Amino acid sequence: MTTHGIDPAALAAALRDFRSAVGAANVFDGEEDRLAYSDHYSPDETRHMPGAAVAPSSVEEVQAIVRIANRHKVPLWPISRGKNFGYGGAAPVLKGSVVLDLSRMKRIEVDRENGTVLVEPGVGFFDLYDHLQKNGIPLWLSVPGNSWGSVAGNALDRGVGYTSYGDHAARICGLEVVLPEGGLVRTGMGAMQGSSTWQLYRNGYGPGWDTMFCQSNFGIVTKLGLWLMPEPETVLGLDFEFDKPDDLGWAIDTIMPLRREGVIQQSPSMGNWLRSAAVMTTREQWTKDKGPLDEKVVTAIRKQFNIGWWSVQVRFFGPAEITEASMKVLRRAFDKKPVLAIKEARWKRGDPPEGSPSSGVPVSFPLANANWHGGRGGHTGYSPVLPPRGDLAMDQFRRTYDLYAKFGMDYHASFAMGDRSLTNVNQILFDRDDPEMMRRVDGFFRALVADAKAKGYGEYRTHIEYMDLVAQTYDYGGHALLRLNERVKDALDPNGIVAPGKSGIWPARYREKKA
Amino acid sequence: MTTHGIDPAALAAALRDFRSAVGAANVFDGEEDRLAYSDHYSPDETRHMPGAAVAPSSVEEVQAIVRIANRHKVPLWPISRGKNFGYGGAAPVLKGSVVLDLSRMKRIEVDRENGTVLVEPGVGFFDLYDHLQKNGIPLWLSVPGNSWGSVAGNALDRGVGYTSYGDHAARICGLEVVLPEGGLVRTGMGAMQGSSTWQLYRNGYGPGWDTMFCQSNFGIVTKLGLWLMPEPETVLGLDFEFDKPDDLGWAIDTIMPLRREGVIQQSPSMGNWLRSAAVMTTREQWTKDKGPLDEKVVTAIRKQFNIGWWSVQVRFFGPAEITEASMKVLRRAFDKKPVLAIKEARWKRGDPPEGSPSSGVPVSFPLANANWHGGRGGHTGYSPVLPPRGDLAMDQFRRTYDLYAKFGMDYHASFAMGDRSLTNVNQILFDRDDPEMMRRVDGFFRALVADAKAKGYGEYRTHIEYMDLVAQTYDYGGHALLRLNERVKDALDPNGIVAPGKSGIWPARYREKKA
Repeated sequence: MTTHGIDPAALAAALRDFRSAVGAANVFDGEEDRLAYSDHYSPDETRHMPGAAVAPSSVEEVQAIVRIANRHKVPLWPISRGKNFGYGGAAPVLKGSVVLDLSRMKRIEVDRENGTVLVEPGVGFFDLYDHLQKNGIPLWLSVPGNSWGSVAGNALDRGVGYTSYGDHAARICGLEVVLPEGGLVRTGMGAMQGSSTWQLYRNGYGPGWDTMFCQSNFGIVTKLGLWLMPEPETVLGLDFEFDKPDDLGWAIDTIMPLRREGVIQQSPSMGNWLRSAAVMTTREQWTKDKGPLDEKVVTAIRKQFNIGWWSVQVRFFGPAEITEASMKVLRRAFDKKPVLAIKEARWKRGDPPEGSPSSGVPVSFPLANANWHGGRGGHTGYSPVLPPRGDLAMDQFRRTYDLYAKFGMDYHASFAMGDRSLTNVNQILFDRDDPEMMRRVDGFFRALVADAKAKGYGEYRTHIEYMDLVAQTYDYGGHALLRLNERVKDALDPNGIVAPGKSGIWPARYREKKA
Repeated sequence: MTTHGIDPAALAAALRDFRSAVGAANVFDGEEDRLAYSDHYSPDETRHMPGAAVAPSSVEEVQAIVRIANRHKVPLWPISRGKNFGYGGAAPVLKGSVVLDLSRMKRIEVDRENGTVLVEPGVGFFDLYDHLQKNGIPLWLSVPGNSWGSVAGNALDRGVGYTSYGDHAARICGLEVVLPEGGLVRTGMGAMQGSSTWQLYRNGYGPGWDTMFCQSNFGIVTKLGLWLMPEPETVLGLDFEFDKPDDLGWAIDTIMPLRREGVIQQSPSMGNWLRSAAVMTTREQWTKDKGPLDEKVVTAIRKQFNIGWWSVQVRFFGPAEITEASMKVLRRAFDKKPVLAIKEARWKRGDPPEGSPSSGVPVSFPLANANWHGGRGGHTGYSPVLPPRGDLAMDQFRRTYDLYAKFGMDYHASFAMGDRSLTNVNQILFDRDDPEMMRRVDGFFRALVADAKAKGYGEYRTHIEYMDLVAQTYDYGGHALLRLNERVKDALDPNGIVAPGKSGIWPARYREKKA
C-alpha cells in the first residue's frame, strides 16, 4: 500500500556498493529486470514494482549486502525463488525496495539416516526431488500443488502439501538467519558450535525462534532444516467425488473425527469442481456469457471430466498392515453415505511413483488454472481459517459463493482439513487483460476479508497488496500483537532494512510516514 | 548465580503497593513464606531464596503487579504452581526476586468437540483430570511422570509425557501473555478480537510467538491453549525388559525406524533398573556401603522386583484395527531379538482406566525416588539431546556411567525416543542431609555438561542454578542467539522485571553488573 519513494541517490550508491560486493553481473536495475521481479499476477504491477534486484551466492554476500543496505538505508525484499504466485510473486510490499534474490543459493545437505535436509533458499522442490532421486535416497517430499517454488520459502510462508508432512512450517527444524544489521544466528540446537542435533531437535534451549522467522521480516533465512518422510512401504487411499454442494458439510463431519483421532494424518482438501476443471479446460470452451456460470454449464463440464461438485483425496502412508487397517476405518466411516463415486489408490514400494503431490512428487500443471478466463491469467489467494465443523463450512461456502456471484467471479475453493481447523483456500481466477474484471477484484477481496472478520475468521496468508488489510483484522487489544511485532522489529532492524510491510509489520521510519 | 541484592527500600515499597493491589492476604514476606517458595531440592536453598511472594487471582491483578514492579524496579519470578522440582521448584534464579505465584488462577475452558482446552497457570494435571472426569468429557491428558505440577507451566518448560500428545510444547495452541511492562497480548488467532479459532489453528498470521514464551522471560503467560487427545477406542502396547547394559544400543536402533516412520507416535523412554527400583525401595535396604553399587546388589534388586537392566514401554492409541496392526509391526521388529521379557498391555474403551501416565492418568508416586538415599532427598535433572542412534546412546551411557562412578553417584537415566532425537534424561538422586555427598553434586553436574558439550550435545532444560552454565554451551557465533535474546529482552523489558536470568537471559541492568 505504502509507496514512499526510495531516495534515488541512496539507491544509486547502494547499487554501486552491491556491485563491488557481489559483482556487476548479479545486480539488476534495468527496466526489464524490474519487470522480471514484479508481480505478474497482480491487477497493477506498478504498485509493487521493485527498484532493482541483487543476487548473492553465499551467506557472507548476504551479510555484505545487508550491511550496505543499512549504510544507505535502502530496504531489501528477500525472496527465495520468487515463485509465490497468488501472493505477490517476487515483488515487494514497498514499491522501490531492492529484491534480494536468493535463488543462486542452492546447497542441499541430506541426513539420509535421520530423514532431514538442510537447504538454502534457492533450492526448489524439483531440485530437491532430483537430488533425492539421483542419489537413491529413500526420502519423500511434501509438495504444494504448484511445486516450482522454493522448499525453504514455501515452509517459511506456511505453505502446505498433501502427505502427512504437509504442514511444512511444522517440519522446520533449525534455521540460519542473517539479522537485519548483518549478524548471523543459528536457531534451535544450531545455537551450539559443533552441534550434533541441529536438524534433529526443534526446541533448543530457551525461547524458540523458528516460527518467528515465518511470514516475518525479523531476518533473512539463509539455511533451513526440514524433516522429510521416510519412503513408506505403502500408500493407500480413497478419492471421493460428491454430487451436490450440500455434501460439503456431512463429508467434513465424517472426515474430521478421523483427523482428530490421528487415523488420517495428512490434511484432506475438499475442492469444488472448478478446482479440478480449471486445469483441464478454459471457460470460453463452454460459454461466451460473462455473467455467473449457468448450472447447465457446470453440469456439462462435470460430466465431460467425470468430476463431482466437490472432491477430496484421503491417503495413508506406512506399513501395509497399518494402511490396510486404516482403509477399513475410513470405509466404515463412509458406509451408506451418499458418495457419488469412490476410487481406490494403491501404491507399494517398488511400484512406479504415483507422480502426484499426494506422494510428494512435484508438479506444476495446477498453474494452468490461470488460463481459465483466457488472456494473461492470474489468481489471488484468499484463505481464512475456520473451526472444523460441517455446518460452519456450509455457511462459509454459501456466504462466499454469494459474494463470488455478486462480484461476477467463478467460485474456486477448497477446504483443507487440518488437525483442529479448516483452511478455506480460495483462488480468485482472473484475466489481467480484462480491465472491467480487474476493477472488480479489489472490492471483491475486501468484501471477503470483511465477511470472514465478521465471523471471527482470519486469513493464514495473503497477497502483498493486502498484508496491511489482513493485519488490521488481527485487532485484539488495539492490535496488541502487531505492536509487539513492531517493537521487536524496531529493536532488530533500526534502519528498517528487511522487508518493510511484510505481514503488516512496518519499521519505525515507515510507520511515522504512514501516520 | 548472580546474587545482587534487591534494594530493600524498593522491595518494601513494592510490597506495600502489592498489598493494595491484591490484598494483604496474598502477599507473603515472612521468613517461613520465603522458605516455602525456596528450592526444596537444592544443595543450598539460600542461593536462590526469594525476597517475597505475591499471588494474584486474575489477569488484571497480574498486570497491576507488573506495573508496580516496574515502578519500583523489583524483579518478579513467575511460577505456575512452583512444582518444577529437579529444576528449581518455585525459586528464582536471582536471589531476592519476588515470586509471582499464579497458582490461584485456575480457570479451565474445554472445547469438548474439538479436543482443546484453555487453562490458566494454576490448573494442575490433577485439576484438569478431575474436571474432565466429573463432566464426562472423553478427552485424555498427557502427563509427566510426576504430575503434580501445572499443565501450562509444564508445557511452557517443554515437559514431556507418554502418549502421542507427549511433546507438550508442540501441542500449545494460542497464549494470553502479560508483557513485561504490563500490556496484554493474545497470540496466534487470538490476536483477532472475537476469534473463533484461537485454540484451533496454531500459526496465526505473521511471526509465530507461542514458542517464544517457552523457557523464556519475555512475558508472563496467563492463559494457555492446549490440544487434548480424544479418548482412543483402544490402547495396546508392549512392555519390554532387557537383561544387559549393552541392550540399549540395538533396542534403540530397533525402535527408532518405527518412530521415524510414524508407526510409533509416542516417545518410548528406555530407563535403567534404578528408575524402576528407586520408587519402590531405598538404598539402605540393600547395602550400607557408600561406594559404587556392587553388581550383586543390582542383581538382587532386579530379581526382587523382576525388572530388567533397562525397560521400555511402547503404546499405540486408536481404533482396534489400527492398534492391532501396529502391534504386529512392532512384534515383527523385535522378532528373534534377545529381549528378557515382554508383557502385553491391552485396554479398550469401557475398561477401567489403566491408571498410569501411559494413558494420561496423573500420578505422583515417581517422586518417591527422592527417598532412595534416605534423609531429606532430592534430585536434579540433567538432560542432553543426542542423535537417535544406538551406538551414540551406548557411548553416552558408558561415558556418563563412568562419570557417575567417579563422583560416587548411582546411575539413574533414561533415553526418550523423540521423532528425530534422543533425550537422555538423568535424575541425579541425592540426600540433602549428607553434606559430603552434596559437595560432590555441583562438580558432577558441571562435568556432565562439559562432557555433553564436547560431543555437540546440548541440554533441553536445566536447573535454575545452571541456567547460565548451559546457556554458555550454546556458543555458535560468539553466543549469537543469546545476544539476540538479550536484544529482544531489552526491547520488551527495559526495567528487567520478568524472571531475570531465566535460560541464561539477563536484562541489561543485571548484565552490566555481571560484567
